Amino acid sequence: MALVLVTGGRGFIGTNLTRELRSRGHDVWTCDILQGEDPLHVRADTSVYQQMEAIFRKHKFDYVYHLAAEYGRWNGEDHYDNLWRTNVIGTKNILRLQERHPFRMIFFSSAEVYGDYDQLMSEDVMERIPIMQMNDYAITKWAGEMQCLNHASMFGSETVRVRPVGCYGPHEYYSPYRGVIPIFVYRSLTGEKFSVYRGHKRIFDYVDDTCTTFANIVENFKPGEVYNIGSREDWAIGIEELAEIVLEATGASPVLAEYKGEEGFTTRVKVVDFSKARRDLRHDPKIDIREGVRRYVAWTRKVYNK
Amino acid sequence: MALVLVTGGRGFIGTNLTRELRSRGHDVWTCDILQGEDPLHVRADTSVYQQMEAIFRKHKFDYVYHLAAEYGRWNGEDHYDNLWRTNVIGTKNILRLQERHPFRMIFFSSAEVYGDYDQLMSEDVMERIPIMQMNDYAITKWAGEMQCLNHASMFGSETVRVRPVGCYGPHEYYSPYRGVIPIFVYRSLTGEKFSVYRGHKRIFDYVDDTCTTFANIVENFKPGEVYNIGSREDWAIGIEELAEIVLEATGASPVLAEYKGEEGFTTRVKVVDFSKARRDLRHDPKIDIREGVRRYVAWTRKVYNK
Repeated sequence: MALVLVTGGRGFIGTNLTRELRSRGHDVWTCDILQGEDPLHVRADTSVYQQMEAIFRKHKFDYVYHLAAEYGRWNGEDHYDNLWRTNVIGTKNILRLQERHPFRMIFFSSAEVYGDYDQLMSEDVMERIPIMQMNDYAITKWAGEMQCLNHASMFGSETVRVRPVGCYGPHEYYSPYRGVIPIFVYRSLTGEKFSVYRGHKRIFDYVDDTCTTFANIVENFKPGEVYNIGSREDWAIGIEELAEIVLEATGASPVLAEYKGEEGFTTRVKVVDFSKARRDLRHDPKIDIREGVRRYVAWTRKVYNK
Repeated sequence: MALVLVTGGRGFIGTNLTRELRSRGHDVWTCDILQGEDPLHVRADTSVYQQMEAIFRKHKFDYVYHLAAEYGRWNGEDHYDNLWRTNVIGTKNILRLQERHPFRMIFFSSAEVYGDYDQLMSEDVMERIPIMQMNDYAITKWAGEMQCLNHASMFGSETVRVRPVGCYGPHEYYSPYRGVIPIFVYRSLTGEKFSVYRGHKRIFDYVDDTCTTFANIVENFKPGEVYNIGSREDWAIGIEELAEIVLEATGASPVLAEYKGEEGFTTRVKVVDFSKARRDLRHDPKIDIREGVRRYVAWTRKVYNK
């Protein structure tokens, strides 16, 4: 069993991943910019070096899941100051601590690093084709990957990078900056209108499935590797169909969905290759979109009393 | 004549460029994290939005030369917090202001964005070949370029990017983080030893020449363009030969130069293409390395009383 730190441990993925890792018997500490009730939780802002250093002075972690980050494209555009400080200065702080403490890091990047690349997104695309990231959030994630790679080559630090794709599920609290599923579900339950852009196709993966794969990393940690982690290639779904599934699961009125033309500055269809995660990390999603949305609707109803 | 703002106007290139622009009759304001005696100078940290916004509320600039930045690779590694805040959050602040005020921006990137690419560095390399930046400083510069490009496509903002290569000259005050010329010159004059890595070849350009070309941009501003700006392709020089030139110009003892093997984590030879700057910006350097070093030695002697 390993001693693990999950940064951003009170966030959406962090909360779910911590539960999964603990269920396997690992000792898991969490840190987050928020305080927390858990005895193994420490308040710390990853962008403030001394707050992180204090944690590493007390514990000798085997693995650090570095999840602490500002999420999402529009959140990143509106809060770029927080974005760059947390996602990039924060990651550099972790890398500096990794030079002094020999833990293995799992760095959370994003499929956003593929920019507007519209062919099959295999992990080695960036080695073959020049890619431009289309927004600050995506740039911070690619910058973080390069920081990890540069530190590995200069200091021999051991890091695995993951690029999650469309993860959703319980503990993803609503804000207007969230992905389509929280927005569709929350607004369906509160009776607010939401925009459904036609012609886009995406992959979504229920957080329990994703966290199973994330947790598997400590069992087959290959330094330097990078993995797309989503659901299954053939679970890609049109945004219009997703809206129908949500309306059905919530019982909301179809008039809430406002259908619009294509959204600008984003790819129409994302096609992602998950074969590497299946091969190395026993990636094997079980919960399809209908079941996942059903569970997420139940969680949202409970949390917001809707 | 234009109303111009030079950010980082008290820095090395900023000081020289401001003088050049004023000599052509432009009205030039400067800002910098430092206070200054000039009546057209404003203290402002580019990474603090409200300080920059206050300047743009008062003046309607035609052009902004955005030079304010943390410089250099090792400075960036040791002071990454300042680096990311100034170079990237600072640039985003300028881009946000550019959405509200229709000025034309000249963004100062760096030839460091070419990473370890060892073929001819033409400006379009990044469109043809996947490049990884090798340190945080280089990543901030590439991030800044992508921010400029994304804002141009989303908001139609007009920006020209420049990638300076090995600029040196008066007002480049010594620190151990500076480039080889200030280090060689300053240490020769103070009698301190300096490392000369064998087998590296670089291009250096005297700041008066470079600033002439930078100042020419307002006369032929082509939005979206990017330019390498250095000296001449055939002025590339080995670092050992440079050391000899400095020792000769300073009259220092040759024992100060400590010859070493190749330096790690940097390219051996940089070959840069300046044809685009010649074509569009009348780029035409006059001051060769011997004359430039002679002038820089004179300036350094005067400033440091050596």
